[in-house]
Amino acid sequence: MKVFVAIDSFKGSATSQELNDAVCQTLAKMSVTSCNVPIADGGEGTLAVLTDTFLGSKVEVNTIDLLGQPIKGSYWLTEIDGVKTAIIESAQILGLTQITPSEETIQKAHSYGLGLVISAALKDAEQVYVSLGGSGVNDGGLGLLAALSNQEIPPKNPLLLGKDFLATLSLPNLGNKKVIGLTDVNNFYTGSQGFTNVFGPQKGGTDEILARLEKGANLVWQNFKAKLDLNSFSGSGAAGGIGGGLLLAGGVLQPGFPTIAQMLQIDKKMSDCDFVITGEGNFDEQTAQGKVPLGVARLARRYQLPVVAFCGARPDKILAIEYHFDGVFSIQSRPSSLQTAMLKKITLQNIALLTENVMKLYLAGKNRHM
Amino acid sequence: MKVFVAIDSFKGSATSQELNDAVCQTLAKMSVTSCNVPIADGGEGTLAVLTDTFLGSKVEVNTIDLLGQPIKGSYWLTEIDGVKTAIIESAQILGLTQITPSEETIQKAHSYGLGLVISAALKDAEQVYVSLGGSGVNDGGLGLLAALSNQEIPPKNPLLLGKDFLATLSLPNLGNKKVIGLTDVNNFYTGSQGFTNVFGPQKGGTDEILARLEKGANLVWQNFKAKLDLNSFSGSGAAGGIGGGLLLAGGVLQPGFPTIAQMLQIDKKMSDCDFVITGEGNFDEQTAQGKVPLGVARLARRYQLPVVAFCGARPDKILAIEYHFDGVFSIQSRPSSLQTAMLKKITLQNIALLTENVMKLYLAGKNRHM
Repeated sequence: MKVFVAIDSFKGSATSQELNDAVCQTLAKMSVTSCNVPIADGGEGTLAVLTDTFLGSKVEVNTIDLLGQPIKGSYWLTEIDGVKTAIIESAQILGLTQITPSEETIQKAHSYGLGLVISAALKDAEQVYVSLGGSGVNDGGLGLLAALSNQEIPPKNPLLLGKDFLATLSLPNLGNKKVIGLTDVNNFYTGSQGFTNVFGPQKGGTDEILARLEKGANLVWQNFKAKLDLNSFSGSGAAGGIGGGLLLAGGVLQPGFPTIAQMLQIDKKMSDCDFVITGEGNFDEQTAQGKVPLGVARLARRYQLPVVAFCGARPDKILAIEYHFDGVFSIQSRPSSLQTAMLKKITLQNIALLTENVMKLYLAGKNRHM
Repeated sequence: MKVFVAIDSFKGSATSQELNDAVCQTLAKMSVTSCNVPIADGGEGTLAVLTDTFLGSKVEVNTIDLLGQPIKGSYWLTEIDGVKTAIIESAQILGLTQITPSEETIQKAHSYGLGLVISAALKDAEQVYVSLGGSGVNDGGLGLLAALSNQEIPPKNPLLLGKDFLATLSLPNLGNKKVIGLTDVNNFYTGSQGFTNVFGPQKGGTDEILARLEKGANLVWQNFKAKLDLNSFSGSGAAGGIGGGLLLAGGVLQPGFPTIAQMLQIDKKMSDCDFVITGEGNFDEQTAQGKVPLGVARLARRYQLPVVAFCGARPDKILAIEYHFDGVFSIQSRPSSLQTAMLKKITLQNIALLTENVMKLYLAGKNRHM
């Protein structure tokens, strides 16, 4: 009996590595071996997972955060299949969790600082991976474009600067270098599935502000439509439109999970396992967009392995994806506030406890074949 | 595949019948047949479970509640194995949930009202079953004794009335009639495992009050020791000492779960099942005292059936009893307040969801024999 363990980070509570370790340690106590694969899908925690596999060095860069404050950013410099590669996690520079989202922040925040780090990385590497999840900006990637083109720092969210800003914006030239954005959502640039309407509210946008931002995003879409129709690219709405910004800069977008899964060779690692445990903090409709648990479950099904998902919270029913799993279990052991439940210590205790009980039950079934 | 389902009530949230129904309906949707056995252990909900099996009629009796207010009490009149039998649930007359426990209530509350209902039932029936769990009194059963001996209603908790009260107390004579107390705890009359020290705090007792009550209980123990050593009877401390009161009245005590299990013939019902689901609201150290889940699990082990327990809350580790189960799962789907988690609708939704996932996982195991 060997269990493949690949649980996404529980945002704000525990990292993929910590959760995986808690599960694998519990399995070891039950004399069950495991294959411990920390995992990510382009969201927060992606860099931590990749640096574990791809040895290299951290290069610091002077940049600014999403509100324009000077900070130290960084990229990871490594080699993948012989290609000099930089890896950048957007959330480390533009993270939503670094601010308290408000009407003020959404109207101010932009992605210029990320552009500065990508610029620096491009001088060192042939290709740059950028994980897009977890950002607190909603600027359509215009700040990033300005930085990549060596233009000035915009005074506020450039989506609110209108046609004048667009008129002065030149698109960068990446030459033969590659920028690959890793997306953890499939959203488009504008419309009901566009970044502003879907993620704007959680970033502090009121209806009135969102309407102005959506108007600005529409201007961008129309401005470049002849060259590149942003709304025909799934993921162009990732990270408040940075996905679209990368496309306009000449980069490409790749869905995070399959790209990372391939980089980590999880397919091969799973091939000699008998059971699969995955999970993520909030198991919900977005999970169906190709987040870690669904990606792992699909792979497990290819090997006809039983697969369960552990999560902090789950809705009553998730018809779209539930059938991929032999069980989706919340780790909660008792009623408790969100704040208490999200304490790292509690989360790790709960997931260890659930692991033991789920494994006992599965083994009870396995020992009673029909 | 046939699943035996016997879940104790989740106190303050859902009855055994409701929880069992939610689980069995979910199983039916999965094309799994079930044996639905509402269950109790002498605690709250015992009467509801027994009246379901033993048809009869409800007889109303004018009595008083634990604080002396006039109420309608009742007993269930039926026949068991040809014997005219009355069944009484203490908690319906003396229930802890009917009051807000305080220093005032614990010093006032007594069991006289229960004695009145037992008196009335004894006129109709050859034997009287009294479920003892869930009471809000801590009077050592003295109020009950006074009622059974046709004495006056005590002005307050008779344990605080001292030697004078004991001097006037005569013990009743049950003749050839039987009174059987069903206990859900093993506590004794006095000492560290006596009712006052173990249950007094949750009934409103401060240290000072508990010391006086314990002193009173010691007086009772010493007063009757030559006739009957209350501290040598496990369960004499049930229901704030009503267990002891029934013993002094000439009644007997029986552990609730095995007695009810036999009355409901759950042994026979389990014999053709393949899997067992049990549970209770709060799964904790007290569960080891012979509450429903442990009783059901022991029976399941006799038939070598896999058994899981569902609960509202569970501690991190319950070494004393965990090995009896192939899994102890909390039904919580997400962090939530105790108040929300205990809403009947939420509880029934959560237990249905857990049932589906536990059964899926077990079947996944069963389909993959070694």
